[in-house]
Amino acid sequence: MKTDIGLPDAARLSADLEEISRLVDTSRPGWSRVALSEVETDSRHHVAALMRAAGLDVRVDNIGNVIGTLSGTGSDRRAIVIGSHTDTVDGGGRYDGIVGVLGAIEVARMLRESGIRLSHDLRVVDFYNEEANRFELSCLGSRALAGSLTSTHLSATDETGRTLGAALAAAGYDDPLNATRWGDDEVLGFLELHIEQGPVLERAGLPLGIVTSIAGISRFRTLFTGRRDHAGTMPMSLRHDAGCAAAGVVLAVEQIAGSADQAVGTVGSVTFTPDATSVVTEAALLTAEFRSPDLGWFSLARDQIAEIAAKEAEKRGLTHEVTWLPWERPTAVDPRLSSAIERSVSALGHPAAHLYSGAGHDGVQMAKLGPIGMIFIPSRDGRSHCPEEFTELDDIVVGVHALARSVITLDQEGLS
Amino acid sequence: MKTDIGLPDAARLSADLEEISRLVDTSRPGWSRVALSEVETDSRHHVAALMRAAGLDVRVDNIGNVIGTLSGTGSDRRAIVIGSHTDTVDGGGRYDGIVGVLGAIEVARMLRESGIRLSHDLRVVDFYNEEANRFELSCLGSRALAGSLTSTHLSATDETGRTLGAALAAAGYDDPLNATRWGDDEVLGFLELHIEQGPVLERAGLPLGIVTSIAGISRFRTLFTGRRDHAGTMPMSLRHDAGCAAAGVVLAVEQIAGSADQAVGTVGSVTFTPDATSVVTEAALLTAEFRSPDLGWFSLARDQIAEIAAKEAEKRGLTHEVTWLPWERPTAVDPRLSSAIERSVSALGHPAAHLYSGAGHDGVQMAKLGPIGMIFIPSRDGRSHCPEEFTELDDIVVGVHALARSVITLDQEGLS
Repeated sequence: MKTDIGLPDAARLSADLEEISRLVDTSRPGWSRVALSEVETDSRHHVAALMRAAGLDVRVDNIGNVIGTLSGTGSDRRAIVIGSHTDTVDGGGRYDGIVGVLGAIEVARMLRESGIRLSHDLRVVDFYNEEANRFELSCLGSRALAGSLTSTHLSATDETGRTLGAALAAAGYDDPLNATRWGDDEVLGFLELHIEQGPVLERAGLPLGIVTSIAGISRFRTLFTGRRDHAGTMPMSLRHDAGCAAAGVVLAVEQIAGSADQAVGTVGSVTFTPDATSVVTEAALLTAEFRSPDLGWFSLARDQIAEIAAKEAEKRGLTHEVTWLPWERPTAVDPRLSSAIERSVSALGHPAAHLYSGAGHDGVQMAKLGPIGMIFIPSRDGRSHCPEEFTELDDIVVGVHALARSVITLDQEGLS
Repeated sequence: MKTDIGLPDAARLSADLEEISRLVDTSRPGWSRVALSEVETDSRHHVAALMRAAGLDVRVDNIGNVIGTLSGTGSDRRAIVIGSHTDTVDGGGRYDGIVGVLGAIEVARMLRESGIRLSHDLRVVDFYNEEANRFELSCLGSRALAGSLTSTHLSATDETGRTLGAALAAAGYDDPLNATRWGDDEVLGFLELHIEQGPVLERAGLPLGIVTSIAGISRFRTLFTGRRDHAGTMPMSLRHDAGCAAAGVVLAVEQIAGSADQAVGTVGSVTFTPDATSVVTEAALLTAEFRSPDLGWFSLARDQIAEIAAKEAEKRGLTHEVTWLPWERPTAVDPRLSSAIERSVSALGHPAAHLYSGAGHDGVQMAKLGPIGMIFIPSRDGRSHCPEEFTELDDIVVGVHALARSVITLDQEGLS
């Protein structure tokens, strides 16, 4: 059985990256290709064409996932799934999910050019709308595949009051809940190549990361309500300043996450009302999040936030509410898939780090259909979701090579 | 010489307060009569009519101050000036400066009804536009009287880009810098009756306050600039989170003012950029102020802010700027005027507190023309600049009585 696979074609990958980077909304900053936009539809047509040229059998499902299949020679009907997404955030970069889609297509070409026939079907997927869209929902395509997209999601509205369902129908997907879901026994394993989006690999000087898990995300809102007073005439001891309590929580989030082994915490949004220089703040609303691969840590963090918010409110005579939003638990990467990736990477002679993913990915949904594994490649300065996002072509080549080799390992050795 | 002055007419004062409270913009919350609005013009016509009915000789100067004069019998041409303002903040209340204007008109009536002729001229003033207007400028009328309104002020623009000068011209005041300034030897003393706007008198159970000084106000902006990062992928130790540094300054302002004997400090406005839940804050801007009657304290407070802002920036690898805006120094109340007020209040048998004013007043400008004094009456719950602003009629009657008696004391005893 042939197992040697050549190197990816760096020039071809580079040209592919360059070509798709032109399919962007030029009226927006950076490289913007947001879901439910015209350029994003063009881009998926372009991806479908690349897949066809690579010899894949292409279909677009009821929610816009572009799926290219290379039939296997064996009797096990479970597929090896690889891919990522080509949509971006507004003002995003050129690498994010794009490297994973173009890299997966390159894997299909490499297999063909190396004369390797897989035993299992290979499905290359450009997942529809991975980034949070204007309806504040992410991973639409993979949610639909995993059966976790619901009519509740479709009734979410954007700023204009239009529903997600109506927007999808206008894009040609008028029945996204049907005939998109995959069966529970369709997936042997899902492998995603992705840029790290953080600085860990670059700082460690390593070209590859083997993802150990995808962090859980727990978001909360805290509203403190005090009293609007004249900032000149109300003595400090008689104030009910909601803004100061919010500041206490901002620092607490930083401190709680900063003292954990593996966690981040961020207060990205704060609103003071009335937000006037000479008025004591009556209400302060903050939106925050914690992320960690450690399921148990979240309850500790939540307890600490509850205690600190109560203390900050009490010492200023405020009322307060802490509202925890529906959360994503950490998603385990299958150790058998990690092991397959590790053996493949090692066979190629590359050192690799083990790290968790702080960002969410389609793998969170795909894990409901079967085991998942992820391969990371370095991001310069750890930047992502911004025009400065950059990954060296050499690193992309190494990542695609590792992905191709891992596909072959999984195909030949299964989940051993 | 007749010195006994009767009580104010409570029913008349109450009716006056009721009548002017109808001259408001009913499309706005509370009792809104903001400067440069139609209702505010109507209101000053109404005030002028009240003055005329009280026997005052009325003129409106080049910036809209309504000035009613009662001629004195003596040879000293310096005037005793009393009054306040009838404009309100947007969403304001029914008492603020209004009590001081209607109370001053009532004093003129009381003098006439008691058959008392003052030796000095009495000028009753409804100062134009005391509250901060949409050009972010306050005390327009008294600034013009004191010669501190400049062409720079007039070139300030509102949100539409219109200049203050153009807005004043449209209101009929096309040459506000000329012929409004009073001479340096025109004012024997300025006395203002005003609601406290704070909770001190109410909590002390006292009907009157003798103001010792008007607090200085020092405002500053602090801008921290860090780096916009993905809130999931950037480890805590490598972040440059501008929002956390801003939170540190919010708490520092509270702590610095809270530990002073006589000071308040407020961060009323905070802006995070990009203000997104899943993004580490790149820039955080806060606007804050300190107020104190103690001139020396301000430099201590500024030093502490400089140190803390630098520390908050340094520990997160941020750049930062602290910008101190042009400030108002504390304004001294003339001890001879305070003494005249104290003797008058004492003669009426009322206990009084000594307190400083945390709010700014026209007295800050009037102090440039001569000695000033202020009498405070209680505000329920210390509320002001809001619809809940309230002062008992009984307290208003006591305040007007104290003002009338103080005018007579000043007239007869001079600045002894």
